[in-house]
Order: sequence, then C-alpha cells, then structure tokens
Amino acid sequence: MEKFEVHILGCGSALPTTRHFPTSQIVNVRDKLFMIDCGEGAQLQFRKSHLKFSRLNHIFISHLHGDHCFGLLGLISTLNLLGRTAELHIHSPKGLEALLTPMLDFFNRQMTYEVLFHEFDTKAAIQIYEDRSLTVTTIPLRHRMPCCGFLFAEKQSPNHILREMVDFYQVPVYELNRIKNGADYVTPEGKIIPNGLLTTPSAPPRSYAYCSDTLPLPSIVEQIRGIDLLFHEATFASEDAPRAKETFHTTAVQAAEIARSAGVKKLLIGHFSARYEDESVLLQEASAIFPDTLLAKETLCVSV
Amino acid sequence: MEKFEVHILGCGSALPTTRHFPTSQIVNVRDKLFMIDCGEGAQLQFRKSHLKFSRLNHIFISHLHGDHCFGLLGLISTLNLLGRTAELHIHSPKGLEALLTPMLDFFNRQMTYEVLFHEFDTKAAIQIYEDRSLTVTTIPLRHRMPCCGFLFAEKQSPNHILREMVDFYQVPVYELNRIKNGADYVTPEGKIIPNGLLTTPSAPPRSYAYCSDTLPLPSIVEQIRGIDLLFHEATFASEDAPRAKETFHTTAVQAAEIARSAGVKKLLIGHFSARYEDESVLLQEASAIFPDTLLAKETLCVSV
Repeated sequence: MEKFEVHILGCGSALPTTRHFPTSQIVNVRDKLFMIDCGEGAQLQFRKSHLKFSRLNHIFISHLHGDHCFGLLGLISTLNLLGRTAELHIHSPKGLEALLTPMLDFFNRQMTYEVLFHEFDTKAAIQIYEDRSLTVTTIPLRHRMPCCGFLFAEKQSPNHILREMVDFYQVPVYELNRIKNGADYVTPEGKIIPNGLLTTPSAPPRSYAYCSDTLPLPSIVEQIRGIDLLFHEATFASEDAPRAKETFHTTAVQAAEIARSAGVKKLLIGHFSARYEDESVLLQEASAIFPDTLLAKETLCVSV
Repeated sequence: MEKFEVHILGCGSALPTTRHFPTSQIVNVRDKLFMIDCGEGAQLQFRKSHLKFSRLNHIFISHLHGDHCFGLLGLISTLNLLGRTAELHIHSPKGLEALLTPMLDFFNRQMTYEVLFHEFDTKAAIQIYEDRSLTVTTIPLRHRMPCCGFLFAEKQSPNHILREMVDFYQVPVYELNRIKNGADYVTPEGKIIPNGLLTTPSAPPRSYAYCSDTLPLPSIVEQIRGIDLLFHEATFASEDAPRAKETFHTTAVQAAEIARSAGVKKLLIGHFSARYEDESVLLQEASAIFPDTLLAKETLCVSV
C-alpha cells in the first residue's frame, strides 16, 4: 500500500508545557510531505521525526493564532540557509502574507527560493490543492477568527493489470492505460474482453481530515463521512465544557460525537489544554463514545 | 552566597538539529531572571527548566538574526495569555521594535501588559541596566550585523555587621547603614572605632559575560578581565577555521585564547554548528588551551 501517514510534531494548545509543542503535523502521502499548521518549534520537531525538508512543498495554516503559525519564520529561514531552490507554497486564511513579508524580508536578505502565499476564503469548502493522487479541500470551522480544517483525499488509483491475462489476450501496450482506468478490451476480431478479466481493483482511496481549532460543528459531518482518520481538537475535558464553549473549542466527548456521527474509521484527538497533567481523562471520555480513539503525542506516526 | 547562575535554554546555532535549540539563556541573579537572546522554542525550554515567567522582566537581544530572536513572539504572547501585568523590557540593537510591533498588534489584540523596547547603539560599551545589586553593560562584538555581548556585574555588597561588636560599642541603629558601607563609628565620647572591628567584608562581587555571535575579538579582553564566567560562542572546530572567519564566528581554540588572555575563571562554550554530531571535539580543542572549559547543553545550569 502506498504511504499515507500523519506525523504529530506538536499537539499542545497555546500555553507551553513541558510535555507538548504547539500544533503542527506532517501528512506524508507517497513521500510528498504536507505540513498542517506550524507552531513554534515545528522545524525542530520535523528534524526529530527524521523527515526530509526537501520533500516539503506545501504548508496549510488553519488560522492565524500564534500557536498555529509562529514556527513559520524559523522554518522558512532554515530552508533558506539550506539553499533550497524549490518554491514553497503556504495556504492560509487571508492576512498571513502581509504579516510575514516584512519579517521575512529583514531576516532573509537574500532568498534562495520563493515563498508563494495562497490565501483562501474560510467560509466555504474549497479544493486548494490537487496532484495526480491527492486533493486537499478546506473544511470551514468555527473559531474566534476565520479558521478551516483540511481534508486530504486520495484519488481512486487505476486498477492493477493482470499481467498473465494481458499476455494471454495479446493486449497491445498502448491499450494498457485505458484498461487500467476501467475500459474493456476489444480484440482485432471484435471480441470484447471485460475489464474484470484483465485487472484487479486497486485499494479504495483513503482520506484524512484535520479539524482544529473549532467549536463542535455538526456541519462538518457530511464532508468527513466515512473517512479513514479524523484528527479533531479536544482541548478540554467535559468538566471544562463551559470554558470550551467560551473559547470556541471542543471537548473530548464532543469530538467523539462528531467522529461517531460521521462514521469515521479512527479518531485522533489533540490540541490539549495545558491544564491536564495527564490526558488519559480525555482519552477515556472520548473512547466511551467512540472506542477507536487515539491520543496525539509528539513524534507519534499514525497510518491512515 | 546569593544566587547567580546561568541556565542554558538553547546552545545550537541557526540550523536546527535533534540535539539543540537555538540560542537562549536565563541569568538568575538573586531570583531576578534575565533572558539573553530568545531563539525559537525559548519559552518551551524556559518551562522545562522550571523557572517562573513572573520573575522575568528584562530580555537582552545580542543581534537581529532569527536564531537569536524568533522566540520573542511566542514568549510575549504567552505572557499575555497568562495575564501578566508587569512591564516587560526588551533591550536590543536598533530595528527590533519596528519589526515586531505589527505582528504583536495582530496576534495579541488586547495586551494585559506593556512591552517596552530599549534599543542600544552597538558600537560602544554602554550600561543598559542597573539595580541595587547588578549592572548590565554591552560588549561591542563583530558579526555580520550590529551585535553586542552583555556583561552582568554584581555590585560590591555592603559589609556584614558583626552583631556582638555593634552591641558591645552600643552603636545606634541609625548608624548601621553607614558602617555597612565602610564608615568607622565615633562614640559619644569621640572615640573612633575602626570599621574593621565592626564588620567583616562581604564576598567579592561576581561577574558573567555573554559573547555571541562574533569573530574572536581581542578588544573585549580588557572589559572581561578576571570575570568569573565567560560564555563565548565556539561555533566551529579548528578544521573549519576558514568557515568561521567567513561567517564571522569563532572556533573553540579562539574562544579559549580569549578566555586565557582575559584571565577569566571559567569558560562556557556554545552556539555549536549543526555539523558536529558530537561536540567533544570542541571541548578538547578549547580545554587544551584553557582547561577550565565547559560545554553548554540544554537545561544545564552553571553557578557564576
């Protein structure tokens, strides 16, 4: 199976603790790396996870709170020191380019590569990235400022050719791409060989959604229905539900309810408030509602 | 003895490694905390060192390279989240306030406390801080941009009163301060009691100098002569001396030569290049010239 995994670089919330870095993740899809959020220290954690900077070309920022983007200056500067030449794309809600540019200009007098900002409207789900095997779509969230999650969805892969059958029917090479994509084969004599005889279906496409920071939002359920892995913030335990509401955050129970309603396969919770010395209370509360729940943890890697 | 110690929060140089954070230190003088430089992640390391944010009122920035100041945004924002009310003073070369202010204004809509910037000229040694027991003076350095080190010098403490002698001569309470500061006592009968009979001298004042980033600079030797502890950058080993010169940095041997010329008591080296998997080569090279050399290390605490 092609690689599709999520590395947690940081899963704390805004206040620093001795246990967590602020939010950042790497999504590895077939060795292309995508960063989601970039809290302070993300580049240090990136190194600790033994990932390669050269494979990172796109960064997605959910919203412009410091604990989700203060690591950008250091990361961008480091890539410059390393002599990067490939463009770096930063996707974010409006305003980031204007904020970062004066500092980037001052601290990196000569850039070896270009940083391209792509600012999206947070009100509707928009596809903001596409390549041969993947799309990334925003998930509108509700926080104290414009904020989006991100849905990483694999495209359906072509079917696998059954080499021995293709040889048996003497299918010409130029027909193979059509057949991979589902076409039947018609022999020179006009006989139709059904696609099912020539191929086996590829694995179903997988998908991962990242939702942080937000109030629990039933409106996201349709967009994330049936996905393989959902990361959802679970900043607070139930006893702090009033505080969660007040600060536009989610409790572990609420995150689990979203996961259950959407029928996702696995739930990963994070963005833990600094008040919990031990997050097992959050895991317990979520697992009671949605058993297949995992706690995020720095350097944890989860397969989608 | 009153507390005077240096905590290493980070001692790497600009490129992140799995071993080091970028530069930041805390100088603890009698439970007042002073930060020197504030690389990315400084606030996280601060927490790890179990220090109290409320005791930090002054930050000294040596120069405006990212690896010495990218942690400021996160730290200032965290203090705001914590509801700090005391002013925070940031001393730096010119330019920092203009760079940080737009980002601080955006990311901290409502500040609970005031950040006061004090920008100094890096060309001459200037006293930039003073309280009852301490002065901080800049040490002009030579780097690729305006840069200063900092000399933390205790003031001479008043002498200790010998309680039994003061009682014996029936010295009135209102005379005690003068006597602590060296005055003799004159009895109502006009007899002179020499100060040496009434007091014992306090411990000699201690001092700490921080010198990073810089070419090895003989001009600093007079200013740091005989100090108790010198932190000097030692970015490179001797085999990389050409690279040190080119980038305006110091080798471990050159740092040790400065320490020896200045007759300091102890040398602490840091700001290690990412190229050394193991910094013992730097320690060996420095120790050969100046035996009382220590390697900096995250969370290390050295008494001055």
